[in-house]
Amino acid sequence: MSAPRSSDDSRMARPLRHAKTWVSSEGVDLENGGRVEEVTVCYETWGELNSAGDNAVLICHALSGDSHVARHDADDDAGWWEILVGPGRAIDPERFFVICSNVLGGCRGTTGPNFIDPESGRRFGADFPVVTVGDMVEVQRRLLDHLDIECLSAVVGGSLGGLQALEWAIRAPHRVNAAVVIAAAPRLSSQGIAFDVVGRNAIRHDPSFASGQYYEAAGPEAGLALARMLAHVTYLSDESMRAKFDPTRLQPRSIETGFESTFSVGSYLAYQGDRFVERFDANSYITLSTAMDLFDLGETDGKVRASLASATCRWLFLSFSSDWLYPPSASKQLADALMARSCSVTRCVIESSAGHDSFLLEEGMRQGGRMVSSFLSRPDGRDQGARAAHEPRSNPATNIFHAQRLDYQLIFRLMPKGASVVDLGCGNGELLTILRDRGHRPLLGVEWDAEEVVACVENGLSVIHADLDQGLASIPDRSFDVALLSQTLQSIVDVGGILDEIVRIGRRGIVSFPNFAHAPMREMFAREGRLPKGEGPYEYEWHDTPNRRFPSILDFQDLCDHRQLRILEAIYVDSRTGEEVVQDPNLKADLAVFALAR
Amino acid sequence: MSAPRSSDDSRMARPLRHAKTWVSSEGVDLENGGRVEEVTVCYETWGELNSAGDNAVLICHALSGDSHVARHDADDDAGWWEILVGPGRAIDPERFFVICSNVLGGCRGTTGPNFIDPESGRRFGADFPVVTVGDMVEVQRRLLDHLDIECLSAVVGGSLGGLQALEWAIRAPHRVNAAVVIAAAPRLSSQGIAFDVVGRNAIRHDPSFASGQYYEAAGPEAGLALARMLAHVTYLSDESMRAKFDPTRLQPRSIETGFESTFSVGSYLAYQGDRFVERFDANSYITLSTAMDLFDLGETDGKVRASLASATCRWLFLSFSSDWLYPPSASKQLADALMARSCSVTRCVIESSAGHDSFLLEEGMRQGGRMVSSFLSRPDGRDQGARAAHEPRSNPATNIFHAQRLDYQLIFRLMPKGASVVDLGCGNGELLTILRDRGHRPLLGVEWDAEEVVACVENGLSVIHADLDQGLASIPDRSFDVALLSQTLQSIVDVGGILDEIVRIGRRGIVSFPNFAHAPMREMFAREGRLPKGEGPYEYEWHDTPNRRFPSILDFQDLCDHRQLRILEAIYVDSRTGEEVVQDPNLKADLAVFALAR
Repeated sequence: MSAPRSSDDSRMARPLRHAKTWVSSEGVDLENGGRVEEVTVCYETWGELNSAGDNAVLICHALSGDSHVARHDADDDAGWWEILVGPGRAIDPERFFVICSNVLGGCRGTTGPNFIDPESGRRFGADFPVVTVGDMVEVQRRLLDHLDIECLSAVVGGSLGGLQALEWAIRAPHRVNAAVVIAAAPRLSSQGIAFDVVGRNAIRHDPSFASGQYYEAAGPEAGLALARMLAHVTYLSDESMRAKFDPTRLQPRSIETGFESTFSVGSYLAYQGDRFVERFDANSYITLSTAMDLFDLGETDGKVRASLASATCRWLFLSFSSDWLYPPSASKQLADALMARSCSVTRCVIESSAGHDSFLLEEGMRQGGRMVSSFLSRPDGRDQGARAAHEPRSNPATNIFHAQRLDYQLIFRLMPKGASVVDLGCGNGELLTILRDRGHRPLLGVEWDAEEVVACVENGLSVIHADLDQGLASIPDRSFDVALLSQTLQSIVDVGGILDEIVRIGRRGIVSFPNFAHAPMREMFAREGRLPKGEGPYEYEWHDTPNRRFPSILDFQDLCDHRQLRILEAIYVDSRTGEEVVQDPNLKADLAVFALAR
Repeated sequence: MSAPRSSDDSRMARPLRHAKTWVSSEGVDLENGGRVEEVTVCYETWGELNSAGDNAVLICHALSGDSHVARHDADDDAGWWEILVGPGRAIDPERFFVICSNVLGGCRGTTGPNFIDPESGRRFGADFPVVTVGDMVEVQRRLLDHLDIECLSAVVGGSLGGLQALEWAIRAPHRVNAAVVIAAAPRLSSQGIAFDVVGRNAIRHDPSFASGQYYEAAGPEAGLALARMLAHVTYLSDESMRAKFDPTRLQPRSIETGFESTFSVGSYLAYQGDRFVERFDANSYITLSTAMDLFDLGETDGKVRASLASATCRWLFLSFSSDWLYPPSASKQLADALMARSCSVTRCVIESSAGHDSFLLEEGMRQGGRMVSSFLSRPDGRDQGARAAHEPRSNPATNIFHAQRLDYQLIFRLMPKGASVVDLGCGNGELLTILRDRGHRPLLGVEWDAEEVVACVENGLSVIHADLDQGLASIPDRSFDVALLSQTLQSIVDVGGILDEIVRIGRRGIVSFPNFAHAPMREMFAREGRLPKGEGPYEYEWHDTPNRRFPSILDFQDLCDHRQLRILEAIYVDSRTGEEVVQDPNLKADLAVFALAR
């Protein structure tokens, strides 16, 4: 029989007033060996399961979190993810049945090292078996069975919670429609593991650790505080610490602590360490941080792909520019692996100075919340081109420009009916939403501007936040009917490279661009000796144009020839008249659209 | 009376066989209060002081270093900076009289916490007073007096040693001709201090620390090992740890240790920690890491400038791309502060994956050694344009190109005799070395390519490793007679911005560029409808040219007009004939050189 820690334990944090407890009497065989005979699960819920049973969202907490995601009423304590969960928030209990449970191995109500080991009759302590993220998910799965939830609308988590979301999609693909994976990775970096190892060594080498059987005494408070201080540094960023502590370097907060507080950052860490030991159990800390370190979808891209082979849900990956613990590159590796398997993936790197902790903060989750909200609003069907539940974002300026974009009409003429399309440099997804209306799917956008990426997600589109000049290797061969480069060619550094890519990832590449050899341009240059300048949106000065390349129709044809690209069709237009140009288009047309193939 | 630790102390590392000891009987009043009555200094020397007494090089060691920089003979133990110091190395005892002493507060022979406190009759322990980098330098200054060295040819150091080099130049400007500051900063980041704080807390909270009086017992071995493990992570880089540990993550080295060794990185750190306690004293670790954290030339650029106001020597700043403890941006802040005061500064960021430790490794110091060698070879005169002791680097390809560079001749015509010059985008310094031969000085180069920067230093030039598109704010107003932009304009993104800058930092700006409106270019474009292409070194294809901008003479004149830049003189040439063009240069000249002013 297991039992929670006694409530008079001074190390126990405030009780969770709305928490429920369920006991799984069936034992759990753990991944790394060992078994827990009976599991108590502490969880909270918000909202109601609808009659179709398809509005459940499981939230997975991070290392030091618990089931208390958000307040249940005005009198309740604030939860740890109020910025994302609650009335009017991205995950709104009015709409979703929200569940969060304390993880296996934790110390906030679910079976962990502070429970009584039925075999020995004393607390598990350091004898608590090694727990993996997979074991945590197994326990959550049983809870969902108990709650009669067959399939989750979404599983959502950041950090250790993001690892759980990944594990859910791998272990139980039929039970997850969508996964929101925030600030996570296929595996923690060796640097990250190193910090965890030092933290665990600090706990274990605190003599009060007493081989983990400290529950009747003071406990390894110094060791746990050291581990927390160290981990806390990895949750922040160099930039945010600079802003917070540099101006008052030698003016520490006056606090009572046994730790060094010469420097302001030292007093801050001392405070964080001292507070942490009041609410967290050292054995749980060792258990959960070890689970993070053991989580491993593989070292290489190939192994990560293989690990994710069973996953079928649609995905939203969010990472933060200043997160060095689970950096954007790690999130990209996950997204790339799933894209390689043609999964429906959206990925965005959010600009934030707050480091790994961004996922808990307004600074990081302002854009993040908008994306989670829109992503969850999409119908559960896995068609990434399906219409968004709400109307696409629209603004007058965009619509005026829209009317000017004659090239859309030309692109439609070259595009097979209902073809799947990837739009490279898709902006806010304007063209993709039109293609969606015309019945094309699946659709994917690639865009470099973060705010445009958010707009795409708000328009219900799948989109990858990426620099076209960094390559498209993550998109597999021939994974779309059409790869589109609409008025983007002139901003590309490696023009030849991108042309090779579009005919690799698309069965057909479609490229539209302004013809810089159009007669007025040539005349201007020849007569005036000034660099030619386009009109309308292309009216830049020679010294500040964002354009990198100045293609003419002839130059483009030569390049295709040189790279052995077949020109399937071409349309040339004088956009001032809207008429097609047949004779001498390089002189007479200012707009060209080509369909290419290898 | 102070005395070194007993030699039978098992925590003492191997004795330094060639170390000498000198006792300064005059007490030292310390910067942060407190006094040490008598200071024992342990030091080593290599080579001989020459008769002029001007070949002394002081090497300053880092936190865990000692006086043993290099072996004294074949039988000797290897020193910690063999890659830089020794026969045939950058700092060659054949040429220089090399000195290195253990720092005040250390544990390798110089007075520190393990010495007997004459007042109490027991070891200082934690009662050893707070020591600053300034105090360390004060003790070194006395040693130099003792050695009859009036002025150092150079002071050289990395990390904590770099801070000492900075302090030398500030405190005793008349005693330092040159400073080589490697992997240092005006102040450690708050993130860096945070790691140090956690390390010191680990030592002090080890019960065996016994308030610092542990010398008769086992000592705080676990705490010191933890501090070392943590610090060690900050000396490496994410990238180098990935390479070292990722492929064998769960295959730890089999070692005997009391620390966790589940992960390969864990066993590595355990080994590092265990070895460190065998050779280092915990109280010294606290003393020296606190000195690093207290070193502070100011938070803002203005304060850093003020702190460096007394310095007059010439400077070489080296930093490493992957160093996140003392990152390149911190080295840049130092160099910028000195440039603002028109000091002679050379700065280079060396590409290395080895993190902060790069300064101790072949990977980091291959280019670094070449630069230190050339930098030290310059005559001690402070004229940054003085001829290098060895011949400028030269290669046939460069010389052929040289002959083609007609624009040099035109530039010389627009350049006041003997004018000081900054060359923006200076390449390997070819033009600057010619200007040096023509009597121009001082001279400074700015270049983005690291290998070209090394070549400049090898050519005896001062050079700043910087991206012109990142701005030139560090160069003060009117600090050169001429700011030169030779055939570089076409690679600049913000053309207007750079033109503003050259007439700010130079009394006169000189700009040479290829005229893209030259008749053959216009004809090609008008007749063929293909983007014009230059000749020789400008013969790029439209789709892969590194050029960002395509200036014509008229466009350039318009821009100058628009930005209110005065054109003082202009020369236009047809480079095929070598003749000057007077009529319609925008059509007939392919090369233009302008002299500008605000």
